[in-house]
Amino acid sequence: MTIRRLDEAERAEALSGLPEWRYDPGRDAIHRRLTFLDFAAAFAFMTRIAILAEKADHHPEWSNVWNRVDITLTTHDADGLSQRDVALAQAIDSIVG
Amino acid sequence: MTIRRLDEAERAEALSGLPEWRYDPGRDAIHRRLTFLDFAAAFAFMTRIAILAEKADHHPEWSNVWNRVDITLTTHDADGLSQRDVALAQAIDSIVG
Repeated sequence: MTIRRLDEAERAEALSGLPEWRYDPGRDAIHRRLTFLDFAAAFAFMTRIAILAEKADHHPEWSNVWNRVDITLTTHDADGLSQRDVALAQAIDSIVG
Repeated sequence: MTIRRLDEAERAEALSGLPEWRYDPGRDAIHRRLTFLDFAAAFAFMTRIAILAEKADHHPEWSNVWNRVDITLTTHDADGLSQRDVALAQAIDSIVG
């Protein structure tokens, strides 16, 4: 199945369900910053996400500085935000609460 | 023990032993980009480094996009490059070969 970029209405609906995520119109991507108690907690979170991402064959762009994790989601094959990003964002939200 | 920033001579000597690392004078930091076969290989590497870093209580600033890992090392407490960064860079080099 080809994955396609969300249209404007689909994107608006998806974003309304992802209030913790900031939309970047320049990249057609979404971003969330998370902070944890310390590095070990941040990396434990990253490991959970890595396994989810690998299973879904859809990977985040992310960075980590000690207790902080910055995550950007977009779909290169779709040239923008797709349902895969929405699903991964929802999974991340459900883990961090 | 207080950790201190390397002086110019110490830094020059350290960098001569770290040819894979690029020195950033603006931040007094070093950077290396690594690419792996795929995301799973990249994250496996990150996990090894995370454990090393936690053990040494000295953590990288790093980002990952699929098979690529970008690592920046500097020591906030020393306001620049310290022996801890050199040790972590050497450990990373010894893992990736």
